[in-house]
Amino acid sequence: MTSLKNDIFIKALLKQPVDRTPVWMMRQAGRYLPEYRQVREQAGSFLKLCTNPELACEVTLQPLRRFDFDAAILFSDILTIPDAMGLGLYFTEGEGPKFKYPVRTAADIDKLPVPDPEVGLRYVVDAVRLIRKNLQGSVPLIGFSGSPWTLATYMVEGGSSKSFQNVKGLMYEQPGLMHIMLDKLAQSVAAYLNAQIAAGAQAVMLFDTWGGMLNSEDYLEFSLHYAKQVRALLKTEVDGLRVPTILFTKGGGLWLESMADAGYDALGLDWQTDIRQARARVGGKVALQGNMDPVALYAKPEIIAEKVKSILDKYGAGSGHVFNLGHGILPDINPEHVKAMVDTVRQYSPIYHQSI
Amino acid sequence: MTSLKNDIFIKALLKQPVDRTPVWMMRQAGRYLPEYRQVREQAGSFLKLCTNPELACEVTLQPLRRFDFDAAILFSDILTIPDAMGLGLYFTEGEGPKFKYPVRTAADIDKLPVPDPEVGLRYVVDAVRLIRKNLQGSVPLIGFSGSPWTLATYMVEGGSSKSFQNVKGLMYEQPGLMHIMLDKLAQSVAAYLNAQIAAGAQAVMLFDTWGGMLNSEDYLEFSLHYAKQVRALLKTEVDGLRVPTILFTKGGGLWLESMADAGYDALGLDWQTDIRQARARVGGKVALQGNMDPVALYAKPEIIAEKVKSILDKYGAGSGHVFNLGHGILPDINPEHVKAMVDTVRQYSPIYHQSI
Repeated sequence: MTSLKNDIFIKALLKQPVDRTPVWMMRQAGRYLPEYRQVREQAGSFLKLCTNPELACEVTLQPLRRFDFDAAILFSDILTIPDAMGLGLYFTEGEGPKFKYPVRTAADIDKLPVPDPEVGLRYVVDAVRLIRKNLQGSVPLIGFSGSPWTLATYMVEGGSSKSFQNVKGLMYEQPGLMHIMLDKLAQSVAAYLNAQIAAGAQAVMLFDTWGGMLNSEDYLEFSLHYAKQVRALLKTEVDGLRVPTILFTKGGGLWLESMADAGYDALGLDWQTDIRQARARVGGKVALQGNMDPVALYAKPEIIAEKVKSILDKYGAGSGHVFNLGHGILPDINPEHVKAMVDTVRQYSPIYHQSI
Repeated sequence: MTSLKNDIFIKALLKQPVDRTPVWMMRQAGRYLPEYRQVREQAGSFLKLCTNPELACEVTLQPLRRFDFDAAILFSDILTIPDAMGLGLYFTEGEGPKFKYPVRTAADIDKLPVPDPEVGLRYVVDAVRLIRKNLQGSVPLIGFSGSPWTLATYMVEGGSSKSFQNVKGLMYEQPGLMHIMLDKLAQSVAAYLNAQIAAGAQAVMLFDTWGGMLNSEDYLEFSLHYAKQVRALLKTEVDGLRVPTILFTKGGGLWLESMADAGYDALGLDWQTDIRQARARVGGKVALQGNMDPVALYAKPEIIAEKVKSILDKYGAGSGHVFNLGHGILPDINPEHVKAMVDTVRQYSPIYHQSI
């Protein structure tokens, strides 16, 4: 068992005292870094980068060499599970992810397997093992998966969507089929995250990127219900240490009270949600992660510092906050601006963590 | 003064008793109707259709010939004001609206005029007059405008945007300039809506399509503040009759309490917001308009009927609800499905309007 040199990310998720607010950034291993673009080019394609554990490890570690992040996050794609289910993931320039064999019929759903992660997703599990080893206990490693609902949207639409017409059509017209599919996905996601935990992930995050496209009732029934099912199946203690869990629904600000009851240790907040109000609404049940607007990173460093301070001020005193963006960093951000964000969190946040 | 044959839309907005819930539909004059597509083709372009009062009148009236809608809405574009300010609106196939001269500098903002609607927007005012005349008092006519913030996003970005990087950049780095621009827009929007009211609009709606892209604090300062300013400048009594006002912020579900204090008679709700909870949150201050997911109109008529009933059930008894979608109808919806929605509202809603 490796003890962590820096465990404030884990402690903050568990609401244990820390001396400053931890910070990491969604998509911190990504296109805004020239060294990432170089490895991406060498790999030949995004998918080749994801499926090669050595390269995935390399790009996972890159941002930690530049910035004082308090956590690493596995570099991978959110659509690895549907790919392992046989849907044939591929990427087209400018159009994002696509599936060769989208799910449309009862027969399609019936034949969906629950993939064994050590077989069909072995490249991810291997990447986790390798990253964990290379981190040498410096900071914790976050594993992740797309949520059942979010995976289902891509699987039924065959890729990205604006209106979500096919997946909502299935949900409205054949809710029973939709539930069968989501149940298989919940089992698959739980097995996938458990394999990441077994391989060394020290915290896990569920990305529900498209839960916010549902109405309140359908969100509870078709998205949050399966996030709960995933949570219930997770093995979140390893060698006596807790593996904290984070649930992030983009556009989920209306439903924080329900999300806080889903069993996760922390909720990710998008930037629209006021973190002061969010903290009051979840009533101490969960930690909060977020939530600066990714677009604020285009601004001058002085402005970025102001925006960071404003979020730290709104969260206020005490543990239970992990600083992050409200969504992934945009690909054309100047890395110096990320430094301004991280430095401000480190320099300014200690005032909110003084013992009385 | 014409008295309306059907005024339940106006009454519901003012929370006066009605015998059924009124219904209309955002973008009810639009591409899902074959007769619209025919006129659009004759016109040669979308802009020519908007700027020709006879054609705009014709397409405004088309949906009323098919469906029992309780209101007509002016057919126009939300970007008429920036065009009248000299920004040079044009449309490209598949990419949406663009401006030849986007606003980027202090000098650009300084030279923005507040257009006189009877001059630069005469074609809209003429269309309102013509539609009002042709409606012959059957149902009320709704006038509308984009909100100052939403207009500003297009003006600074030069068109549609995913990240809103330029307009947020201006807002973060030069908030004073942004306020000058929004103040001019608020004056322009108020003058424009007042001209529509003077020409015969019997209710007006402010479309804040992109307010939901802001964080809570910035929403209040840069979007809602100017919606309030517009409202304060509106002349909402004509010949002793109230002209009700509706404020719609897509993605604004988190901020309903603040929106309810902005002086509008009603709030438009997107489909994510639960209308039962929304009614409780606004505490009787405003009527509510909405909020079926536009995607539900792809479903079978029986399912559409269920979804409509569920929304009527959630709003519950009493006046103060105008049935609508939570956003505009999508262009490939079968008109028969719209009929299923409208018929269900008419047939099912009277149970919620029985006097005790």
